[in-house]
Order: sequence, then structure tokens, then C-alpha cells
Amino acid sequence: MATQLKPGDALGILGGGQLGRMIAQAASGLGLTCHIFAPEADSPAFEVAARRTVASYADTAALAAFADAVEAVTLEFENVPVEALTFLERLVPVRPGASALAVAQDRLAEKRLANSLGLKTAPFAAIANAADLAAALAVIGRPAVLKTNRFGYDGKGQAKILTPGDDIAALAAMRGQPAILEGFVSFEREVSVVAARGFDGAFAAFDVTWNEHRDHILHRSLAPAPVTDKVASTALAASRAIADALGYIGVLGVEFFVTDGGEVLVNEIAPRVHNSGHWTLEGALTSQFEQHVRAVAGWPLGDTRRLSHEVEMLNLIGADADGWLELLADPQARLTLYGKAETRPGRKMGHVTRLRG
Amino acid sequence: MATQLKPGDALGILGGGQLGRMIAQAASGLGLTCHIFAPEADSPAFEVAARRTVASYADTAALAAFADAVEAVTLEFENVPVEALTFLERLVPVRPGASALAVAQDRLAEKRLANSLGLKTAPFAAIANAADLAAALAVIGRPAVLKTNRFGYDGKGQAKILTPGDDIAALAAMRGQPAILEGFVSFEREVSVVAARGFDGAFAAFDVTWNEHRDHILHRSLAPAPVTDKVASTALAASRAIADALGYIGVLGVEFFVTDGGEVLVNEIAPRVHNSGHWTLEGALTSQFEQHVRAVAGWPLGDTRRLSHEVEMLNLIGADADGWLELLADPQARLTLYGKAETRPGRKMGHVTRLRG
Repeated sequence: MATQLKPGDALGILGGGQLGRMIAQAASGLGLTCHIFAPEADSPAFEVAARRTVASYADTAALAAFADAVEAVTLEFENVPVEALTFLERLVPVRPGASALAVAQDRLAEKRLANSLGLKTAPFAAIANAADLAAALAVIGRPAVLKTNRFGYDGKGQAKILTPGDDIAALAAMRGQPAILEGFVSFEREVSVVAARGFDGAFAAFDVTWNEHRDHILHRSLAPAPVTDKVASTALAASRAIADALGYIGVLGVEFFVTDGGEVLVNEIAPRVHNSGHWTLEGALTSQFEQHVRAVAGWPLGDTRRLSHEVEMLNLIGADADGWLELLADPQARLTLYGKAETRPGRKMGHVTRLRG
Repeated sequence: MATQLKPGDALGILGGGQLGRMIAQAASGLGLTCHIFAPEADSPAFEVAARRTVASYADTAALAAFADAVEAVTLEFENVPVEALTFLERLVPVRPGASALAVAQDRLAEKRLANSLGLKTAPFAAIANAADLAAALAVIGRPAVLKTNRFGYDGKGQAKILTPGDDIAALAAMRGQPAILEGFVSFEREVSVVAARGFDGAFAAFDVTWNEHRDHILHRSLAPAPVTDKVASTALAASRAIADALGYIGVLGVEFFVTDGGEVLVNEIAPRVHNSGHWTLEGALTSQFEQHVRAVAGWPLGDTRRLSHEVEMLNLIGADADGWLELLADPQARLTLYGKAETRPGRKMGHVTRLRG
């Protein structure tokens, strides 16, 4: 199934949020037709795509019809059920594939993969019950954070354990789902690598990016990250090792903690275009969205060069987007809005990029 | 009707070709919803827009429903019947308006407007019949070119008159339509100004661009044009005078001849985004498409700064687009394809932009 797409072919995208929307926009720019598959009838990506399917990821008849209508399938977020991808893979090339997704959906598998490649992570342990938790806390110590193993994002499904009194509440917050205890890392910065691996194994990364979060949601990204060359090259090499180990095709984001001592710890692997790569839309010669399309289509990867000395991206969360008119009037600001009908607190409404120097 | 659009509003676009497609992509990036109105069922712009109407521009019921569904209307090409715009203007803001379109559709009105503003043009005369032609040729001389007054583009509706033997055939080629005789200009270069005029009268131009044609179709644009500061400032001032005189809202393209003696003659006014402005997609801080959306939406105009020393745009005409894979592999090339299903000789299939230095 080493299919190479050609202009005019249809690219299927699972998921209809802003990431799917921006992938579709990039794909259209290269002459592909986009078909979005998403469960929500008001998906922002529908507005910029030629075709849509509104159906559950469990609807195999809808998935089969979707596979039939497209030349390749990709996804915009990691919480598509692996079963849907496994089903589709029998019918049409799916990039990245179900096996890569299975690892990236699972915090435990993710960290085990990293360690198996010789990459450092925070200390962690699998937690199924109170006995596991007690045993793990005895080794890892407090403070620590308990997270559901799967389906967490933007801080959802997480509970901090600062004192012994937090243990029971944290476990209850997991609602019986398999969890992972992670030791607190005293880190200087969070950075990420957004990179692509092509069908032929080619690898191309954007500059290491420094990310600041607020309320567990990405607030600001700055490229290049103010880190030493050694830290940057360690993060880039780790990302490449992970992409290779997963046999990955497409863009992925790898999040790292850089400790006060300059250690680089793998935090999370996102098997998709990544919020911390939005600066590439105006700030790099090829955007992460075009890069993803190139990889998924079996085309050569694009040049990832940064276009200015420094690029800053700010997320517009909830009411932040109310400032759109001032942002449009700011000659330094490049605004992107996601076309979401309803502004809700914590909802990503758009972002703004500034190129400097 | 000084309506200012807001994110989530619907922008109506008359015309479904690549210009409408790229306007829609820019509008989506700023959170607008796009509704394309076009007569052709396979219009490339439909693929990237939320809603479409397939109907004739003479279908007033369809136009009324379209007006009802959008907050403002713009157009991607100048050959939309003025009657359609006049009809729509009673229902919804139309930018640019019918009166600007009426001038730009008519070569005679265009040149008369230019002259009335003190701007130079080639010598010209209105031609209704053989007597008009004989009289005009006696003044203007041969070689000259006879053009239909309306609905010509890419060299269509034009006939050269080199010798007296060409007169009758040239007039016959007009098929009885009102025509204009234009004296041949010995020019050094063709240049254009792509500029925007906002709702508030603000004016912002991109760099003067040098255009080379092949078979009457734009082949290559280079920004900035290699012209003197005096030529550039004359062309920019002329464009602003024309935009002001038309009460124009949106992006327009003005084509000029620069004579061997350094004179700047107005050639044509295009009341829309312009092929010679495609380089701004990657080569300027704001693209002409975003700029058009900003103007039409009643938003502040964006910064038109060029992002590199020199920007070159090559059109991909017909089979040129077959080289898409090599272009994707060229790290200097930025490819845009228009999603046209069928490659035909002379058909604009896409373009490629190169930033240098």
C-alpha cells in the first residue's frame, strides 16, 4: 500500500476540529480534495472541505463508505478509537497507522517506548488500584500526579497528589480507568519538537519550541526555544528515534521537560499536528499542516526553515478571541480563527503569530 | 450599509474559479464562513467553502436567496453581469460595488476614467463600425489592436491590425460588439499594482510587480519590478487615484505599460484580486486574498511588506502542472494547485512562488 497521492485525489481526515480544518486547508492548497469524518454535526473542519461524513467512529458502514471515497486517511487527533483505524487499514492506506496510534494513546506504552529507546522520562508506574498506588508512591514519592492512561488532553483526567490525604480522591478521579502515576519533575522549561517522517523514512523537524501552559492548556509557544544546542539536539534525536520506532508517517509532536540540570525527559507523544507547531503556518517555509499532507500523500517533505529570528504563537482561549479586531489592526500580528460558532471558556478559538527580527 | 463583518459571518463570493477559491481560503482563516455562487457545477472554489449555489447570474430567485444567506458579497472576476450586482446591492452590501464593476468591465470607460484623472493611456478610440475604424486608424495609425469593449481577458476578443489588409478581419472578429482601437505602445515592461482600498478610504499597495506574458496569458511575475523609483511611485499614485475615483472597496489590480522613455500608461483595471498578486500568498506579510477579505469585511487593512529581497511567481498553465512532483521536491518552490479536475491547454492549473534572498 505504498500509495502516492496525486492532485485531485481525496484525502480523508478523521476528526473535524481546528487541526483537521488546518490540514484540510493545506491539502486544498496542493490540489487535494478533502473529506472529513467526524461525529459532531457542527465540526469546524466541515466548512473548508469538499465532503463530510457525520457519523460515530464505531459506525463501520460509514467508515467503509468513507474508505471507499478517499485515496488515503489521516487523523487530526489521537483519541480516534484504534478499532476504527484497524478497520480502515484493511480498506485504504491510513497514515499514521493504528499501531502508532495505539502507543500514543497510552501514556504507559508511550513512556515504555521512550525508555526502551534509551530516552529519559519522569519516574512512572502503572496503577490499577489503591495497592498499586501505595506501592508506587512509596518509590516515586509525593508530589506526584495520577493520570488516566488513555484519553487525557489539556489536563483532563489528571489529579495531583501533594499529601497522603490526596491519594483516595486522586484514585477516585480516575473513575476506575487504568492510570499512571508520574513523579513530579522540577523542570526549567517545557519544550516540544514538531517533526515529520515521510513514507521513505525521511525525517524533518521544525525548530525546538518553548511552550508555556496556563490551566493545563498551551498558552504561548516560542521558536526557537531558548535552550542549549545540546538540549535541542537531544530533543531532536529523541523525536527521530520515536518516529522511526513507530514506523510513523506524518507529523508528530513530542513534548519534553528540560530539567534544571539540563536533562531532557520525554513527556508525551502526540500522533498528529500539534498546537505548539501552529507558529509554522506563517513562521516557517513549510507549515506543519502542509508537511503532514506531504508525508501522508507520500510526497517529499518540505523545507522546515524558520522565516524570522523568532516566532511567537499565542493561543486565543475562550474570550481571548473577542480581541480579534485589535489583533487585525496590529501589523505585527497574524491572526487565525477556527470558525467555531460558540465561544466557551477553555475552548481554543484561534491563535495569533508574531514574527520578529 | 457600513456593515462590518465579524467572525462567524458568511461572506458570499460570486464566481467559483481559483480566485474565489483563494479568497475563500483566506476568509476561512479569519473565521468567516464562505458561500460561493457560480454557474458551473464543478467550480474549484466549491471544494473549500461551506456552502454553494449553482445558478446563473441571471437567476434573481437564486441571487435573492444568496443575499439572504450572507452578510456581504464580493466577486472573484469582473465579468459578473452588472445587473446581478445591482440586484444584490439592494439586499446586501456588495464590495466592490456595481458602479466600480461597470467601469472596469468597459475598456472605453476605464481609459476615459484614467485620462480624466490626468493619467496617461495608449491612444484609443471607440469603434462601432468600419467608418469609425477608418477614421481612428487615420489618427492612431498602424500597428494597432482592436478589442471588444467588454468581456475580454487573457487575449480573448482581440485582433491585431498590422496592415490595411487586416482591417476587415479585425472588425469581423468583434462580431458586432462595441470595440475600442488602441494604438500600439512600444513598451519596455508591463507592470502592475495590486492594492486595496478599505471601507474607510485607507489604501495599501503591494510592491509594483513586473509581468511577462506568453500567448496573452501571464507567465511570470517578479516583485519588486525592476523599475525606477519614479516609475514605481507614478504607478502607485495612479492606482490610488483610480481606487479613490471608483469609491472602491477591496483589492484591485491595475496594469501599466512602462515605455522605453519611462512613461507610465494605464492599460487595464481589474476589479478583483489579480494573478500578478499571487506572489503575496507566501511573499508578503498579508496576502492579497486576506487583504481583499479585510477590505470587504470592513476590517483594517494588513501590512503589505514583502518578506524577501525578491519574489518570483510562475503560472502553471495546462501541462506545466504535470511537473507538480518535481516542484514539491524543490525546497525553493512553494506550490499552489487549484484543484481543477481537467488539464486543458491554456488553463491556469496552479502557480509556484520562489522567495529569494
